[in-house]
Amino acid sequence: MAQAAVTPTPLLKDELDIVIPTIRNLDFLEMWRPFFQPYHLIIVQDGDPSKVIKVPEGFDYELYNRNDINRILGPKASCISFKDSACRCFGFMVSKKKYIYTIDDDCFVAKDPSGKDINALEQHITNILSPSTPFFFNTLYDPYREGADFVRGYPFSLREGVPTAVSHGLWLNIPDYDAPTQLVKPRERNSRYVDAVLTIPKGTLFPMCGMNLAFNRELIGPAMYFGLMGDGQPIGRYDDMWAGWCTKVITDHLGLGVKTGLPYIWHSKASNPFVNLKKEYKGIYWQEELIPFFQSATLPKECTTVQKCYIELSKQVKSKLGKVDEYFLKLADAMVTWIEAWDELNPSGGKPAELPNGPAK
Amino acid sequence: MAQAAVTPTPLLKDELDIVIPTIRNLDFLEMWRPFFQPYHLIIVQDGDPSKVIKVPEGFDYELYNRNDINRILGPKASCISFKDSACRCFGFMVSKKKYIYTIDDDCFVAKDPSGKDINALEQHITNILSPSTPFFFNTLYDPYREGADFVRGYPFSLREGVPTAVSHGLWLNIPDYDAPTQLVKPRERNSRYVDAVLTIPKGTLFPMCGMNLAFNRELIGPAMYFGLMGDGQPIGRYDDMWAGWCTKVITDHLGLGVKTGLPYIWHSKASNPFVNLKKEYKGIYWQEELIPFFQSATLPKECTTVQKCYIELSKQVKSKLGKVDEYFLKLADAMVTWIEAWDELNPSGGKPAELPNGPAK
Repeated sequence: MAQAAVTPTPLLKDELDIVIPTIRNLDFLEMWRPFFQPYHLIIVQDGDPSKVIKVPEGFDYELYNRNDINRILGPKASCISFKDSACRCFGFMVSKKKYIYTIDDDCFVAKDPSGKDINALEQHITNILSPSTPFFFNTLYDPYREGADFVRGYPFSLREGVPTAVSHGLWLNIPDYDAPTQLVKPRERNSRYVDAVLTIPKGTLFPMCGMNLAFNRELIGPAMYFGLMGDGQPIGRYDDMWAGWCTKVITDHLGLGVKTGLPYIWHSKASNPFVNLKKEYKGIYWQEELIPFFQSATLPKECTTVQKCYIELSKQVKSKLGKVDEYFLKLADAMVTWIEAWDELNPSGGKPAELPNGPAK
Repeated sequence: MAQAAVTPTPLLKDELDIVIPTIRNLDFLEMWRPFFQPYHLIIVQDGDPSKVIKVPEGFDYELYNRNDINRILGPKASCISFKDSACRCFGFMVSKKKYIYTIDDDCFVAKDPSGKDINALEQHITNILSPSTPFFFNTLYDPYREGADFVRGYPFSLREGVPTAVSHGLWLNIPDYDAPTQLVKPRERNSRYVDAVLTIPKGTLFPMCGMNLAFNRELIGPAMYFGLMGDGQPIGRYDDMWAGWCTKVITDHLGLGVKTGLPYIWHSKASNPFVNLKKEYKGIYWQEELIPFFQSATLPKECTTVQKCYIELSKQVKSKLGKVDEYFLKLADAMVTWIEAWDELNPSGGKPAELPNGPAK
């Protein structure tokens, strides 16, 4: 009875911000309280700035609405989307922490197959603090997990791995489908719990979803720009995809890793497929040109920081995608503005990413 | 009571051979009887040909010992390893079927998390009859599985997939570790059932294990050469790795897919790590040069069949790996002999693989 209960300090408590874009009261945080309360929240309020967003008591947070964004960034606020969850990347920019976890406000705590609540944040931290293995595939998935290792035939020189820049988590219940698939399979739910984390190999692109995502801000932050979406823009729902493609090209170039798989969150509500189709339809056909563009994009050796990589990529977007649609000219300019704003708010510049020794090409 | 029990015809019953290399009585087949009995077995007896291998009653099989191999291949029998499970590839060569499943005789039926016996062969057939997606990563894994699909952001032009050439299954209990890892972690067991099948992306190599492996012989058979191992050779335990690296380079070139993941078998017995170390140690350091070689290997457009690809690869092995060790000069010659023997036993030549339309590079 005299023994004090030991409450372990949550991992990275003072080194991680949780970024939440929202237009509504954050009641969903109640369910996350046991896991999120020790952390600092950055809430990016989208839409009408005069609306008051209620945050459950006991959470430590800062909240930015559109007026704040305009005040802080001035004319450079043009690079931050309005009326679209792409606005979340403003939170990445104003954070002063090394790590970011971002989650949508329609995502709840999922249960693992044993019925236990999944501490998604803890699993992301585990993912991001252990190395990645982008140069060779390990058939038992993440070799750094308890009970796993590198299998026979895995080159020993690659077993040290590389720093992990991104941890991409998944979703049970409502899968993250595009509008056409939503329309065709209105009742499909994801009920398959796949107990795996794996590195997405170098040279392979993936569809990065922003719903349940963590990253190392020092390593890759300036590439996590969610583009121009929503109000006044011809597309939506490609914000996270855009960030993912840019990020993957840059992590591949810099010798960093991207993991996907665990943790799952419970995605509660399917968005309206008709509304989504309207937002997506241009993206659906533009994408057919974007993917080959990103698959073949290469960055010169001189690009040794994320910022330099990103500016170079913006030039390639302008010169090669500008002919797909003039939207990409505007987007390329916004990419530059984003980096300018990032550097203004982060004057130390972050530590420049050092190029680790990759394997022979 | 009058109703007859409906016994469904097993999938691909007349189109698939099960290839088993062995040196002992095949009692392990008793456990597999419900799943394997309808299929034809090709047993490749390694070691002393005068020894009699007992096969449980009721199985339909043909058995080849070293005398048979020498008689059938004549001088070309030199390309088939002796005293090493690499001899299994002789079974691939003499098969007349479209599909091969190969399994080691220390592999038993595993159970899924619900306690049900896993029909490994059925899952391999499912894998191999559904397409692969090597050009872009799907975060919900195999999009063709029940309850899964392509996620938002997956290019629609890539959703048809490509033909699957290889299905690489995994192992519960004893993991497939190299000797150093076995020595360091003598008690490690694989107890994690990962409910996933996924395509190994184009351009990414993997450690292919021959313990529990299926492939489409028409699409990739001639690349499934398990090299020169065992008796009279300086290495062992790299037979399946060699086949996997060659296969992956060729499937990537021909626009075919390789899947890994389910099904699991129960791997019963760890091999002796000291013996393994002796077999592996040259492979462990040669591998550091082999991986960069295979990672950078490219095949010219004129290589439109697996045979042409394989002969071209043998030339590159000779010219680029010959300087690593003279063993690779011998291996390069054996690769050519293998193809000659394959074509002799398969005079129709198999259907030449057509190059599907890949994505823009």
